[in-house]
Amino acid sequence: MSNNSKDTIFIGKKPLMTYVTSAIIQLATMPLITIKARGMTIAHAVDVAQIVLQKTKPAFVIGDVKIGSESLVSQDGKNRDVSSIEISLKRAEA
Amino acid sequence: MSNNSKDTIFIGKKPLMTYVTSAIIQLATMPLITIKARGMTIAHAVDVAQIVLQKTKPAFVIGDVKIGSESLVSQDGKNRDVSSIEISLKRAEA
Repeated sequence: MSNNSKDTIFIGKKPLMTYVTSAIIQLATMPLITIKARGMTIAHAVDVAQIVLQKTKPAFVIGDVKIGSESLVSQDGKNRDVSSIEISLKRAEA
Repeated sequence: MSNNSKDTIFIGKKPLMTYVTSAIIQLATMPLITIKARGMTIAHAVDVAQIVLQKTKPAFVIGDVKIGSESLVSQDGKNRDVSSIEISLKRAEA
């Protein structure tokens, strides 16, 4: 689940630093990006956001953090509710 | 790490429903509670919040969601940054 459209980063199974690098590159040209994750990768989304802030201090700040639940069809065909998070990172006001 | 002070629930290693039940009981007497978690239990904190909302619809809503990083001393004595989340749940406006 790694479909990095222009200003969104979906956290999948790759190493954290892959997403950290993508985020920093996108933030170089975009005022705001959104890190998205579902299920157990939610913790990694928070890690990625924190590492980006640490490495680029004080350039960026956390914008909105939204949590929710999505209904997905699992491999056995059953509907399952999976938690989700969206973390936006934006340029700090000068 | 499960120290349920009056209006705070720390997510630890117990089954999710333990925390869901605690949250619903606390919300019966308090206008706002905060679910806190660190590291990989962050995803469980989001799960607990979502399950509480589902089971009590439309009584409660998500308040603030804050993410951060805490520096902890791990067992080998080294400092490690661990991600953290705080999710507040409050009574929906009538």
